Parts: sequence; structure tokens; C-alpha cells
Amino acid sequence: MSERRNILTDPQSSRVKRVAGLFRRSSRNRHGRYLAEGPQAVREAIKCVPEQVLDLYLTEAAGQRQQDILQSAQQANIYLHWVSQAVMDAISTDAQGLVAVMDLAGIRAGADALAQVLKGATQVVVMSETQDPGNAGTIIRVADAAGADAVIMARGCVELTSPKVIRASAGSLYHLPVITGLALDDIIAALRDAQLNILAADGAAHLSLFAIEDMLATPVAWLLGNEARGLSRSELNHADAVVAIPIYGKAESLNVATAAAVCLYATARAQH
Amino acid sequence: MSERRNILTDPQSSRVKRVAGLFRRSSRNRHGRYLAEGPQAVREAIKCVPEQVLDLYLTEAAGQRQQDILQSAQQANIYLHWVSQAVMDAISTDAQGLVAVMDLAGIRAGADALAQVLKGATQVVVMSETQDPGNAGTIIRVADAAGADAVIMARGCVELTSPKVIRASAGSLYHLPVITGLALDDIIAALRDAQLNILAADGAAHLSLFAIEDMLATPVAWLLGNEARGLSRSELNHADAVVAIPIYGKAESLNVATAAAVCLYATARAQH
Repeated sequence: MSERRNILTDPQSSRVKRVAGLFRRSSRNRHGRYLAEGPQAVREAIKCVPEQVLDLYLTEAAGQRQQDILQSAQQANIYLHWVSQAVMDAISTDAQGLVAVMDLAGIRAGADALAQVLKGATQVVVMSETQDPGNAGTIIRVADAAGADAVIMARGCVELTSPKVIRASAGSLYHLPVITGLALDDIIAALRDAQLNILAADGAAHLSLFAIEDMLATPVAWLLGNEARGLSRSELNHADAVVAIPIYGKAESLNVATAAAVCLYATARAQH
Repeated sequence: MSERRNILTDPQSSRVKRVAGLFRRSSRNRHGRYLAEGPQAVREAIKCVPEQVLDLYLTEAAGQRQQDILQSAQQANIYLHWVSQAVMDAISTDAQGLVAVMDLAGIRAGADALAQVLKGATQVVVMSETQDPGNAGTIIRVADAAGADAVIMARGCVELTSPKVIRASAGSLYHLPVITGLALDDIIAALRDAQLNILAADGAAHLSLFAIEDMLATPVAWLLGNEARGLSRSELNHADAVVAIPIYGKAESLNVATAAAVCLYATARAQH
């Protein structure tokens, strides 16, 4: 390439420290920014929400490997910062050479945003007290794959902008609306207003997922609980039906993200 | 309690170092032992395969919390080693106070073991080149839940006895046979002998999982590939049918463990 590049080479520089600091929640909230790491998340961010991509940090090796991302970033006039491998390592060890600094204002929150995405929705997913970032990201990804209209993360869940959530979502958080910041009671009220049937996933339920075909064909909201404790009694009381995935073997339960996959695909299948 | 307990308190002792060393594959193979960490794995090991539990290391706090495990270990005459929290931390930071040393000879391997478990089987899962321990363990867990007859991990997968695989399986590896150590070609030959239909999961396939109800009701073996690369052309050539989970949204693909959940439950539903 003929152009001459300035390459950031000092892992100790204040700029690098500021970017790496966005791994901390306090720093994300103070600066109104968060990170999307790795080719999959960065590619989807540039493709779907380029206006939210504030800066792109990349190594020359990553730029060579991911020419498509480099081109779309240039076309979208995203500010590129070329960095040495040592600087990239100081920012993230899990980014495969590509980190985007994203605008936190792009994350949808609040009752108005929720009411809007629920209009005409036929399948949405509500996480309550989901704590593991890998589970939360995987649920967003499977909700996207199953064609859900929105994912709602009630207050008390792991933060959506935690880097591990973003990574596990594999870019899906830029494919469908993910709403944060609301208490579960307010979410339930909005689901009722939008006339969605609320189905709670609970391994101890008597009603089998495979016995409610008719209900799955109606507009539904899936309510998913905490990894260890599941849904509380008061959470279960919000539901129109409490549903279990049948266990045919000796497993005590399913991982919440696995359970989400089975429930959402059973719904998608009934609705399509 | 009236009995006086000897408590191991030195994290630097050779015994503690030997147990902690079982996190390394070389050490597991040299000593013929591996670790099961945490209440869920330990409970299921003692319940289902007590003869394979060689030693149990636990803290007093864990013994208090998990009285059922303590009792069943005592009933099974398993050698208990009470340890200080510092010793437990030196063994594992992820065990919630309970680590079992397991006999590696209990892990089934080889052609005879495979032929035996395939007799009369109606659903089995074959992993090829599955590398992520969390995925491998989650697949074993969902195979158990979906009532599969066996899981087969072809040579080239992450090792079954890797602590993260054991943990993600949540005890399910003690609920159904998990066979290791065979090359994929030999596994395919055994599946053919047992007259199972081989279905390969591949996101790029034209055939939808939801369009093959009749085939799912026959005895099937699901072939699952590597997380990043999927199944190779030569692996796909082994299959009687190559099947995709439909993507209704914009996600490019599903995580392999999520895909396994959807495929195995679609099969369980068709067969039950």
C-alpha cells in the first residue's frame, strides 16, 4: 500500500488505556462508549449500525485478513486507528486484531423503545436475572436465528455491553432490537398491552413444550430466568403458562441458553 | 461433630500438587486419573459410578452445605480428604469446595465399547473436531436430556476429561455412555453396521430440519463439526442427509451446542 500509516505503538499511552478501560462497566457509563471485539461483532456493527461505530482499532495483520471489514469501514468513514500487536494485546487478548469503540447511546432502553418494538411482534424473549455473559449473548444469537422480534434484558441481568455478552452474541445484537434498563414489572405490563401470551420456561413445570402447539402459534413472549435459581414464584406468577422442555434422559435440567434454543425454535416452527 | 478430622492445610504438599496437576492432560494420562469438580459432577459421579470415584477432597463448609453428597460418599466407602480452603483453592478455584479424583479407566473407549452401545440405539451424537470444552460438555448434557443413547467424541475432539468439559456436562457424562478414542472413519463404519441413518448438521444445507420428520423417527446418528469450520467435505460425504436448522432472522449461524439442542430435541420429539 502506498499510503503511509501512523501506527500506535505505545501500550502505555493514555489513549490505549482509555480504550482498554472500557472493559469496566464504570468506565463505559462515564464515557458513553463500549467495545465490540473480533471480526464477527465488528463486521455486523459496521454493516448494521455504522453510525454507532466511533473508532476502529486494528492491527495491520487483521486489516490484511479482513479486507471486507476494512473496506466497509472506509466507505462508512469510520476513523481507523492502526495499532501494533502489543497495543492490541493491551486492549484485548480476544479480538483477533479488531476492536470497535461503540456509542453507548445506540443501546435501546426504556418504555418507549419497548412499546415500539412490541408493535406487531409475534415472538420476543425476556431475560430476568440472567447473569452469565456467555448465556446472555448466546440467547441473543439464538433469538436472532429463530426470527424473534426483540430481546428484552430486565434490570438485574448482566450488562448487555459487557464484552463477553457482545462476543457471544456474534453480532446478533445489531440484527434485532435488544432493550435494556426496565424493571420486570414494567416489561410485563408492556407485554400485556401488546397482547402477547407470556410463557415462562421452568424445568419443574407439568406442561410440556410439545403439548402447546396452538399457543406457540399465537404471539408469545418467552420469560427466561436465572442460571442457578430459575424463575422465582413471583416471576412465574406473571406467566400465562409455565412450560417445561421434557427431559427424556437423566439430566436434571438444561442450561438456560440451550433451553432458550429449544423453546424459541419450537415457537418459530409453529409460527412459520 | 464428635469425630476428629485430619485436615490437609498445606497447599504446597506433594499430595495437593499431584491432585492439582490433573488439570494437565499429560498428568491425567500418566496417573490414570482425572478430576470432577463441583457439587453437580461429584454428586452424579458418586450416584452413578461410585466405583470410579477414587478420592473425594472437600472443605468443611462444602461438607456442611452438601450433606447429601457427604452421606452418599460415606455409604459408598469413598476415601474422604478434608482440606482447608487454601488447599481447595490450590486444587481448583471453580469447585465450590468439592473435587473428586476419578479413575480414567472408567472412560469408555474403543470399537468394542462402541459396538455395544449402538445395539438398539435410536439416537446417538457424534462430535468431530469439537474443540471448545464448554460446547463439548453442553452437548453431552443436552444429549442426556434429549434421551440420546450415547455420545461419541471422535479422535481430534477436545479431551472428555478436560475439567471444563466435565463441568459443562453437569454430571451427564455419568448418565449415558460417552465413547472416545476412535477415528471418525471407524465410527462411521460402526454406525452403518448398526443401521443408523447418519444426519450431518450443516448451516449451508438446503434440506431443513423441519422437513424430515419421517427420517427423524428412524434410528439416527447426528454428526456435529468444528465450531469455526463446521464439517469438512469428506465428513459431509459420510452422511445420509445433510440438514440445516432454518435461520429466520439475520444470524449467520448457530453455536454448535445450540444447534445440537435444536436437532436432538427435534429428533426426540419425532421419536417419542
